[in-house]
Formats: sequence, C-alpha cells, structure tokens
Amino acid sequence: MTQTLEQIKAAMAATNDLFNSEVFAKGNYDAFDQIYTENSNILPPGAPMISGRPAIKEFWASAIASLSAKSVVLSSVDVALAGDGIVEIGKAVLTLQPEGQDAMDVELKYVVHWREEDGLWKWHTDIWNMNA
Amino acid sequence: MTQTLEQIKAAMAATNDLFNSEVFAKGNYDAFDQIYTENSNILPPGAPMISGRPAIKEFWASAIASLSAKSVVLSSVDVALAGDGIVEIGKAVLTLQPEGQDAMDVELKYVVHWREEDGLWKWHTDIWNMNA
Repeated sequence: MTQTLEQIKAAMAATNDLFNSEVFAKGNYDAFDQIYTENSNILPPGAPMISGRPAIKEFWASAIASLSAKSVVLSSVDVALAGDGIVEIGKAVLTLQPEGQDAMDVELKYVVHWREEDGLWKWHTDIWNMNA
Repeated sequence: MTQTLEQIKAAMAATNDLFNSEVFAKGNYDAFDQIYTENSNILPPGAPMISGRPAIKEFWASAIASLSAKSVVLSSVDVALAGDGIVEIGKAVLTLQPEGQDAMDVELKYVVHWREEDGLWKWHTDIWNMNA
C-alpha cells in the first residue's frame, strides 16, 4: 500500500511522540520495540556505535537515569524520501532535572534514517550531537 | 545509467579520499565542490546546523585551522542503498598536531546521506560526533 509523504510524516510524528510519552514519561522501555527497528544502530556522542534493540534499550535506560532526563521534544527540520526509507534532520530539546536542582533544557540535533518495519515507521540509524 | 553498489562504493571512496588528499593535505577548499552537494547540510558537534556549500567551506577552513588538524582517514562501516541515495555509517580518525606538540589521533563516527550530483557521489547530509 503506497503511503503519501504526509501519511509517512504523521506516522513518524507518532513514533517520535512515543519517545517522550512512553519512554521518558512512563519509563516504558518496551515502547522501544515500536521506535527502533530490530537491527538498528545508534551513534551517541562520547561512546562507540551501539547495535541492536536490546543494547539500545540498555543504553537509554542508563543515559536517562544518569542524566536525570525528564522529557524530550523532537521536531523535524527536514524530511527527505530515500527509497523505502526516510532521512530526517531534526532537533531535540531535552529537559534535565537532577535531584534538588532547577530543570534545564539542552538543545540537540540529529539525523535519523527511518524504515518501515511491521507496519510502523521506526528509527533504523540514529545519530545526534549537542548544539553547544 | 544504472550503477552497481560496488561502483557506487568505489565512487564514494574516491570522494572520501578527496577530503584528506585535497582539503587536509593541500588546503584546496575548492575540492568541496566535489565533496558536498550544493544544498548540503552539516551538523557539527557544538554548533547549530550549517546549510549550503559556501558556509560549509567556511566552517571547515576555520575548524581545520583552529584544531591544527593535519589529516583524516574515513572508512565506511555500513553502506545502505536508500532510493537515489546512500546512507553511510562510517568512522573517522582525525590527526591533530598543534604547533610544537606531538600529533594525536581522535576517533569520530558519522552518518552521511549521499546523493549523486553532476555525475559525482557527494555528501548531502553530514553529521558526526566523538567516540570519547
């Protein structure tokens, strides 16, 4: 079934929302099954590439706890069709609040190569860095 | 004319080599015309996204000088066909040598969305970060 770019963008926004609404807000790490493809790779700053959904779940559980990250807002800056997939440039605002401190926002930017898997649009390659 | 993935990989390796052999070794910034697409974007760590080849040339001229960067070796880790383009995951070893100091290597990783422009395979979206 052919999807229009608008339909794909809506599906992407739904996936992106899960990162905040399920992972950050509820600590529901099973939601990563709907966010990352089974054989995805992430390239986090300050660490080597991490491959496969189980290892990626462990990375995020550890990173969110160690950063005291409370929420994240992702927004697309550019969405380019790339065959069966999409290359998205986006920005993220991550809100951190260590115990007893004021919340602070950190700006990041990212590139995600999206693929459709099991009828869902998911992150297949995910790399990001800080703006400052 | 349809190219095989092997032909595309060879063209990509030739472009990647220009980054070291022309830009780093000779200071030939005109070589960026063969490396980046006209409307490319780069997402460097510690700065906002930079759009368009003229601004990207200025970024690299400034970054190479301020880092005392002497050479770079790029190698592909994963090359995925993505419609008319390619999504490459790669690693880079950057050699820095500030005046009067020993050379030191820095490891980085990157994702590049490649597109063909004017018969050359070029970097259309380029994002990287440090491994440590």
